[in-house]
Amino acid sequence: MNDTPNTTRRGFLKAGLATGGALAAGGGGAAANPDPLITEVQPWATGLGAGVDATPYGLPIEYEADVIRRNVPWLTADVISSINFTPIHALDGTITPQGCAFERHHSGAIDMRKEDYRLMINGLVDTPLVFTYADLERFPRVNHTYFLECAANTGMEWAGAQLNGAQFTHGMIHNMEYTGVPLRTLLEEAGIQPSARWIYVEGADASSNGRSIPLEKALDDVLVAFRANGEALRMEHGYPVRLCVPGWEGNMWVKWLRRVEVMDRPVESREETSKYTDTLADGTSRKWTWVMDAKSIITSPSPQSPIVHGHGPLVIAGLAWSGRGAIERVDVSLDGGRNWQSARLAAPPQPMALTRFYLEIEWDGSEMLLQSRAIDSTGYVQPTKAQLREVRGLNSIYHNNCIQTWWIKPDGEAENVEVS
Amino acid sequence: MNDTPNTTRRGFLKAGLATGGALAAGGGGAAANPDPLITEVQPWATGLGAGVDATPYGLPIEYEADVIRRNVPWLTADVISSINFTPIHALDGTITPQGCAFERHHSGAIDMRKEDYRLMINGLVDTPLVFTYADLERFPRVNHTYFLECAANTGMEWAGAQLNGAQFTHGMIHNMEYTGVPLRTLLEEAGIQPSARWIYVEGADASSNGRSIPLEKALDDVLVAFRANGEALRMEHGYPVRLCVPGWEGNMWVKWLRRVEVMDRPVESREETSKYTDTLADGTSRKWTWVMDAKSIITSPSPQSPIVHGHGPLVIAGLAWSGRGAIERVDVSLDGGRNWQSARLAAPPQPMALTRFYLEIEWDGSEMLLQSRAIDSTGYVQPTKAQLREVRGLNSIYHNNCIQTWWIKPDGEAENVEVS
Repeated sequence: MNDTPNTTRRGFLKAGLATGGALAAGGGGAAANPDPLITEVQPWATGLGAGVDATPYGLPIEYEADVIRRNVPWLTADVISSINFTPIHALDGTITPQGCAFERHHSGAIDMRKEDYRLMINGLVDTPLVFTYADLERFPRVNHTYFLECAANTGMEWAGAQLNGAQFTHGMIHNMEYTGVPLRTLLEEAGIQPSARWIYVEGADASSNGRSIPLEKALDDVLVAFRANGEALRMEHGYPVRLCVPGWEGNMWVKWLRRVEVMDRPVESREETSKYTDTLADGTSRKWTWVMDAKSIITSPSPQSPIVHGHGPLVIAGLAWSGRGAIERVDVSLDGGRNWQSARLAAPPQPMALTRFYLEIEWDGSEMLLQSRAIDSTGYVQPTKAQLREVRGLNSIYHNNCIQTWWIKPDGEAENVEVS
Repeated sequence: MNDTPNTTRRGFLKAGLATGGALAAGGGGAAANPDPLITEVQPWATGLGAGVDATPYGLPIEYEADVIRRNVPWLTADVISSINFTPIHALDGTITPQGCAFERHHSGAIDMRKEDYRLMINGLVDTPLVFTYADLERFPRVNHTYFLECAANTGMEWAGAQLNGAQFTHGMIHNMEYTGVPLRTLLEEAGIQPSARWIYVEGADASSNGRSIPLEKALDDVLVAFRANGEALRMEHGYPVRLCVPGWEGNMWVKWLRRVEVMDRPVESREETSKYTDTLADGTSRKWTWVMDAKSIITSPSPQSPIVHGHGPLVIAGLAWSGRGAIERVDVSLDGGRNWQSARLAAPPQPMALTRFYLEIEWDGSEMLLQSRAIDSTGYVQPTKAQLREVRGLNSIYHNNCIQTWWIKPDGEAENVEVS
């Protein structure tokens, strides 16, 4: 993998950039470039700005006020039991700030003090235990950056190209550096009995959102997390404690984690039977589809992030991820999947975390059908929508990891389309 | 390096945790553990919480309202030309959220729209150029996580133990994932003339904060950055564009970057002569002390983060970094530097980025003189305060990377002290 862009190709700007431009050498700058932002002293260079007491907790500048989570009112009956979307079309890099990381609640985000937090471990254990928040802070901690993707991400697109923007088609995802205690540590503290095969986890909110997890996964990489990107969790992400289930569907990352019951069988709760299963064409449903398969999306250009600068150099940027390991390669097509070229990965891919990719092209202003295709470390290749439909039919909601197409028009606008 | 905590030692909790505790097996839980948070249904489990439209940009929960940047009023004459401090005592992991990343201004934080942004490259170049913000977005981008440390971090401690808290002694630091264009790309676009040896960079604010940087560094890893942790920069961090000078003192990371002049010699500006140089005992000053040497700090326990849970298992947490490369090892002493043991590094250390370390101990309640000592990939060992003073005297302000001591008292309170 080459994560260094080619920075030695001279003439990049001269070949195509329409704005800015060369200053005349010598004293003729003003005449050659009458841009008042260059030739005139600006107010911010003559006066004083804001002091360091102005913002004890800093917020985005007013000009970025549109980079926010957005919900889709028609999607659910009530905002208490709904979802909003990360503005991935407007972000870069890989870390998602907590403030714009999407939310999903089944009975609303609850307000709990750390002092009122309790975590019970019971069931097939030698000693049932209850932990306070302060107890959790006394166990050895780990730090890992993981993506969290809702199983329903891209779910509205099964039936066709419906939502016009990467935020809405692919924004049920975020990627944060979590700090927490391995669940294994707490389970071993309680003492796992030989007949144990599963755990059942539930949250303190009214929905409880109970899910069954195989003991093997619980003892592998699951975290009882109390920090994201260094800070306490936001209320809407489960303050003070949530579960991290790396690579697996977001519904299992139970918020306001209240109880872990060790069991010999799964519960088969509402959240893993009537919900979060994939109904096939014949009416039967796939069972236990926990892992989020390899997927990618071009975040710019995209419908909410059109090309505004005309022909010439264009940076195509996107995100890729896999719940089965690290991203190995991302291909980009400009022509709806007929021809592919490898994108540049911005950093060495980490397992079960977002990977940023870029492809720099010279855009001649003609139409494009932009697609990206992720390949992960298991060799799995992100499928087309047609390939997914062939196996899964049209009844599914969850686990749509198909290749997305943006139709880029000559004016730079982008539209969500399907290619046959 | 072993980044996996020992999670197999049974009896961790039973040996020492004072709070929480074991539930009686069978039906006797309520009698054995009358904690109403376990035995009674709580209000958050019966009602609805907040909907997904409540916080389009999510803020920390009210209970975390003390995790904010703080300034020290007596430190400078005016808050417009001052500094505040990252609450490192209250953070974990390595990423610093923008909202609590420290600020330092010389003439206040200025308010500039992207549309009004211009970057000039002039001097010893073939073609002087002016870039708009939109121009910058058309060049190949890179992503890197780097620490930014103010040269004055820990500067008040030269004369003795003065400030009682890691936020104030070591909080002029943050660590973010930056997205930007290599400065090399833009310089090569303009065409560097053979006589070029230095660049001079300045910001658009009234102070301009001009600094000279050797061309070798400018062509190596310096970034023209427009994102931090995925988002646009905060106003106070240089929105829309700042310089990143990895591993080098924060003052060189010019905010609201306005101009890069390619030169054959350094300017020797105010900010690199009367300021940001280290006056020695004999009255002369060290010249060009750009690199931030290896340093570390125990963030918890610390004066603002005392031990509140009594004897038994204690997690010691801290941060280490080096401007010369990656952290190789961190040692921790419980007795003021007489005996040392290696801490656990939470993730493979990255060059010029914060590394989180942990050491888990059984605390018997006796006094401790807690210290940490960073060793970087060049073999450099973080010095004691006495070693630094021997070389540098007591006139310095900047570049104090000495070992810090926290006196932990039997009641768990911590105090900033010096050990002889």
